[in-house]
Amino acid sequence: MAILLNNMGFENQPWADVFADELPDMPVHVWPEVPDPAQIKYAVVWKHPHGDLRRYPNLQAILLLGAGTDHIDAEPDLPKVPVVRLLDPDVGNDMAQYALYWAMHFHRRYEDYRQQAQRAEWQAHEVTRSKEFRVTVLGLGIIGQEVAQRIAGGGFCAQGWNRSPRQIEGVKTWHGAGELSEALQHSDVVVNCLPLNDSTRHLLNRQRLSALPKGAFLINISRGAVIDDDGLIELLNDGHVSGAALDCFAQEPLPQESPYWRMPNVYVTPHMSGSTYVKSASRPVVENIRRLEKGDVPQPIHLPPQHAAST
Amino acid sequence: MAILLNNMGFENQPWADVFADELPDMPVHVWPEVPDPAQIKYAVVWKHPHGDLRRYPNLQAILLLGAGTDHIDAEPDLPKVPVVRLLDPDVGNDMAQYALYWAMHFHRRYEDYRQQAQRAEWQAHEVTRSKEFRVTVLGLGIIGQEVAQRIAGGGFCAQGWNRSPRQIEGVKTWHGAGELSEALQHSDVVVNCLPLNDSTRHLLNRQRLSALPKGAFLINISRGAVIDDDGLIELLNDGHVSGAALDCFAQEPLPQESPYWRMPNVYVTPHMSGSTYVKSASRPVVENIRRLEKGDVPQPIHLPPQHAAST
Repeated sequence: MAILLNNMGFENQPWADVFADELPDMPVHVWPEVPDPAQIKYAVVWKHPHGDLRRYPNLQAILLLGAGTDHIDAEPDLPKVPVVRLLDPDVGNDMAQYALYWAMHFHRRYEDYRQQAQRAEWQAHEVTRSKEFRVTVLGLGIIGQEVAQRIAGGGFCAQGWNRSPRQIEGVKTWHGAGELSEALQHSDVVVNCLPLNDSTRHLLNRQRLSALPKGAFLINISRGAVIDDDGLIELLNDGHVSGAALDCFAQEPLPQESPYWRMPNVYVTPHMSGSTYVKSASRPVVENIRRLEKGDVPQPIHLPPQHAAST
Repeated sequence: MAILLNNMGFENQPWADVFADELPDMPVHVWPEVPDPAQIKYAVVWKHPHGDLRRYPNLQAILLLGAGTDHIDAEPDLPKVPVVRLLDPDVGNDMAQYALYWAMHFHRRYEDYRQQAQRAEWQAHEVTRSKEFRVTVLGLGIIGQEVAQRIAGGGFCAQGWNRSPRQIEGVKTWHGAGELSEALQHSDVVVNCLPLNDSTRHLLNRQRLSALPKGAFLINISRGAVIDDDGLIELLNDGHVSGAALDCFAQEPLPQESPYWRMPNVYVTPHMSGSTYVKSASRPVVENIRRLEKGDVPQPIHLPPQHAAST
């Protein structure tokens, strides 16, 4: 039995090398070179071509090479085998750092200082004390919780909103559709960590984002399509939203013609907030394959809507 | 008996208001309007004119309105009364945030992303994992310790160097003149938190900074004159030091003709890393005056070299 490896759009070789070292009894076939599809027991994939997973009659588990599940959740032809997300601890750390960096950037007015320095202008600005500067994380899954805790540890007033209730020490939380608007009303910065699914697509539209106090900021580190771009762009242009740091977009790479590239109050980064490092990320993947081989449950298991609907 | 208030170069009124509220029995005289110098019991000062403190024959304590002691340590005519520093907890927080912001800025290459965005260029860069990115705090006093702990909590490899030995959980430390060069050799970023005195003036000169690995970064949040500007500028120009975030300078405001303003790899900020907020900073000052009135010891007491020399 063998591993199918398809890290679509990213490098496969470093992963193949790790598996060869750590799981020497299990051959690795890098997509699309699969001599015998019946040999494939585990599919280790990221953004695989939809439909491809049906080709492997003896598939026993799908192991994703990232935390996001929107691509697998949209697979119209998903085999009924366990789906395992990848939670590289370094990714949560990196995403939390990204959110904290931009929260500090907006809070302390570093862009103003950068422009002042170009004019050799020495002028300090008084700002809200950081423990009164409210940074609200939308989506308190494993990554969102880590982001919220880091925001609190970074000296800010950390808050959060989640679909279902969540309790996090030191973090004020709201939950449910009914409280989203209240959460936004009390936010100086919003950090979007929501997964993309039918209930979150374009959730942050013009109307909902208008609940933010004038002058608030937005940071997006999960999925671009949670935001309605037209609505956000209007609010950025009329100054209701003062600035945005955007790391993910409905279409990636962000098209050349996107207005985001040219807006002075928008910081575009190329989906770099949470990079997967083979060195650390391969450990949980290898560990999960070993668990599966022993008959243990891998983690974290993801329940895709296709499976939920049919159970 | 009365309070002399002289927050030289900054606002006095907010402090006078707090003292009037909190210490109603003690009149406040704002320098230079001092009707009767013999009435002055406590001098609450920042950057007072040297020599002025000798005018108050009944002075019982000097309370500084900041953490830095270089100005009082250089007072040639210092009365032999207790000197109390101001340690506003918010200042340590703000300075730690400043250091963490710039460490993240340099580590994650945000300047490259800013320039790429101007060209609508989508390109992520792989960087050292943050827990392997070594950020070394020079000077582990109360503020330096807070900075080092925040750097560690922010996900970096936090290190420190101090004149005398210091143990901080989660922070590798070196100490003494003999180990400075070794500390620098193992640093990707150096954060200067050293006080300015005879042994630290121009400590960070070209020769010592050359011990840094090529491509390292410097952050200065204590005093400008700890750095030999000519030496640093040479190293920045030849690329040995990749970049610097400088918040304090030998002369402030930084003169228009300083090359720092025009260097593309230097970020000049106007001594804003640790602002004193009257709201929080007035609490320890009022508390220390109350302690003195009761005959208790204020804190933290500072021992200026003028007193040490004469004891």
